[in-house]
Amino acid sequence: MPRPSPTLARAIENPCAIIRSLGILTDTWSFLLVREALLGARTFAQFRDALGIASDVLAARLASLVEHGVMARTPYREPGQRTRDAYDLTPAGEELKTVLVAMQQWGHAHVPREPELRVVPLTIEGRQRVHAELVDTAGQIVAPDAVQFVRTAPRPAPVAE
Amino acid sequence: MPRPSPTLARAIENPCAIIRSLGILTDTWSFLLVREALLGARTFAQFRDALGIASDVLAARLASLVEHGVMARTPYREPGQRTRDAYDLTPAGEELKTVLVAMQQWGHAHVPREPELRVVPLTIEGRQRVHAELVDTAGQIVAPDAVQFVRTAPRPAPVAE
Repeated sequence: MPRPSPTLARAIENPCAIIRSLGILTDTWSFLLVREALLGARTFAQFRDALGIASDVLAARLASLVEHGVMARTPYREPGQRTRDAYDLTPAGEELKTVLVAMQQWGHAHVPREPELRVVPLTIEGRQRVHAELVDTAGQIVAPDAVQFVRTAPRPAPVAE
Repeated sequence: MPRPSPTLARAIENPCAIIRSLGILTDTWSFLLVREALLGARTFAQFRDALGIASDVLAARLASLVEHGVMARTPYREPGQRTRDAYDLTPAGEELKTVLVAMQQWGHAHVPREPELRVVPLTIEGRQRVHAELVDTAGQIVAPDAVQFVRTAPRPAPVAE
């Protein structure tokens, strides 16, 4: 299994949780692999064919997502074939839906393009359209301009690498 | 102003809105600059000192965020100083709060680390803690495992670069 690069190791040690998330979702491919998994891809060939990704890059990214608990690997065997691995999102991987939906709706609103890839998040029961929103402790939606980021402890040394 | 790299140009043309967002938030520095802006940084020196980022990298990232409508540049002048630029988040930049809060809470839950950087999103009025959630069309919070991604049009050619 590939070892994380020094850069990745530093990012996942970062005191900022945003940067630690980016230390696992290291690049565009990682986001695309999670997107395809959410759309039902499970096998190496399904990811490769959906994305046109080089096999060595795909193998490294899947191994990293497994190593960091986003996907779980399960052996499977089709009749007459050798045993292969299937990749399924873990519960932690499933929770990336909130991140992906937030990024998708931001891109849709602020970097519009036609034709748009039509991938939409829906409730499984009822097939209602779902959005990512900021909500307060009572579960009420809060507009972004009503929210501030507040530092609650003294600033440590610079946190970026 | 630096021209976008060919890679960036391709990402912001991508039919997938997630990838277009990543075409603007190209790297860890971009996320960190938005985070620092949300915490109140406005000047080149404030961003540089908060992040320990090299001046040339900072200049290029700020120019790109301005070019893509995430930040707006405003000249300002302190007494006895030359005119400098201040950088403020646009409304589109403010809407990245949902993305950052979603990534922050994912990293906090799934890549825990101590000591954690204590930056928390609060409502401006009432200072209630805010979370990123998936909500349905009635504004009700939906758990990630009750949401599916659905492709609503035929799959185009592979969309990654």
